[in-house]
Amino acid sequence: MTSNKDEYELFYWPSIQGRGEFVRLALEEAGASYKDVARGSKSEGGGVPALLAMLKTADGEGALPFAPPILKHKSVIVSHVAAILHYLGPKLGLITDTEPKRIEALQHQLTITDWVAEVHDTHHPVSNGLYYEDQKPEAKKRAKEFTKERIPKFIGHFERALERNTASQGKHLVGSSLSYVDLSLFQMIEGLRYAFPKAMKTHEKEAPRVVALHDSVAARPNIAAYVASKRRIPFNEDGIFRHYPELEG
Amino acid sequence: MTSNKDEYELFYWPSIQGRGEFVRLALEEAGASYKDVARGSKSEGGGVPALLAMLKTADGEGALPFAPPILKHKSVIVSHVAAILHYLGPKLGLITDTEPKRIEALQHQLTITDWVAEVHDTHHPVSNGLYYEDQKPEAKKRAKEFTKERIPKFIGHFERALERNTASQGKHLVGSSLSYVDLSLFQMIEGLRYAFPKAMKTHEKEAPRVVALHDSVAARPNIAAYVASKRRIPFNEDGIFRHYPELEG
Repeated sequence: MTSNKDEYELFYWPSIQGRGEFVRLALEEAGASYKDVARGSKSEGGGVPALLAMLKTADGEGALPFAPPILKHKSVIVSHVAAILHYLGPKLGLITDTEPKRIEALQHQLTITDWVAEVHDTHHPVSNGLYYEDQKPEAKKRAKEFTKERIPKFIGHFERALERNTASQGKHLVGSSLSYVDLSLFQMIEGLRYAFPKAMKTHEKEAPRVVALHDSVAARPNIAAYVASKRRIPFNEDGIFRHYPELEG
Repeated sequence: MTSNKDEYELFYWPSIQGRGEFVRLALEEAGASYKDVARGSKSEGGGVPALLAMLKTADGEGALPFAPPILKHKSVIVSHVAAILHYLGPKLGLITDTEPKRIEALQHQLTITDWVAEVHDTHHPVSNGLYYEDQKPEAKKRAKEFTKERIPKFIGHFERALERNTASQGKHLVGSSLSYVDLSLFQMIEGLRYAFPKAMKTHEKEAPRVVALHDSVAARPNIAAYVASKRRIPFNEDGIFRHYPELEG
């Protein structure tokens, strides 16, 4: 994972899964050679300083990144999870390389992007610049709405999307085989189970196809090996998915 | 705009600019033939029922839409602003049709997507399912953070991005000519001026390139004609950009 021949460099916070995890899962499933730069040692040009330097200098061709994650591949830099996965998808064999299929996957990934932002805002409803402790009353309100209204809406949406995709008999979101959006949906379920276990226990009952997809991704050899490895950072209360029991009421 | 030969059909709420406006601006700049379906008459198959029917049946090839806007082109449906513009960009001549340029534009559009979501949450920080009036104290807190911290962060980001794009002498976000992301940045400035005029007066001073880009887009003949026409729905307090004086403190 840290040889000089690594094809891809990922720049993301080293102590959380966060948004970077959606990219890590794609790289891991594909068995890609990549360096998780900010998790490397400072003495070898890694660590958080390397991430901050990339944000500041935007050393590469492509749009100026607004925030991590950032992927560097040869001389190209790409930021935003959905754009990174759009870029990586065909290269990693995680989407059929045709315009219609790529755009179909992009749309699903953007729904997941919105979902992730809503998860984040359950613990930061007022401002990302304030601590959770300083916005707890608002967080309780927002988390209540999220667990009651939004989780079933999003899960129900993906259940319907799977049902509609007859090409895969409801087993994949795009086309007839695994794509990166399947991996991202797996991660949503993992994260939500960690953050809101009670709510998920209820809502998962209504979404058998989503749960089956989660389970089939979890059983894939590369994903199972990754999740069991030290490369998989445990969920924690600095990430997007945080377990604050008080937010489940 | 309503002949049978319209090439594109846009499905979006008929009484607000909202997220649909980013698509409308691209179609208008290109002089494309399109139907704004939900603004058509119910007796001719338009109106909100047509929008709701599209959401329910997802009549077309592509991903199941989660929410409007939805574009229909021939048998293809595309949802999410960034995916719609990614799809339309080369067809409308609003992005160079190469993978690197398209991905560069996609990244900028995704930063704008995030920015739009933050604007929305200034008046709906707790839940989209509640009225603004029922989340006013939280809205005041969130709007304060947004106007103080986030507007300058985003505007400063795009100022840097323009400065960095030497190919256009800082006049365009991608490459050397107009792209759909320039139109979207124009719309952000328009909307923020409407919603937070005091804050914008201050923050715009720090972003001369962004203001110049806004002005150059406003002066484009097709955009000027559109903005002056009845097709441009006025900003109002049902949309994304809302002017609530109490949110400016």
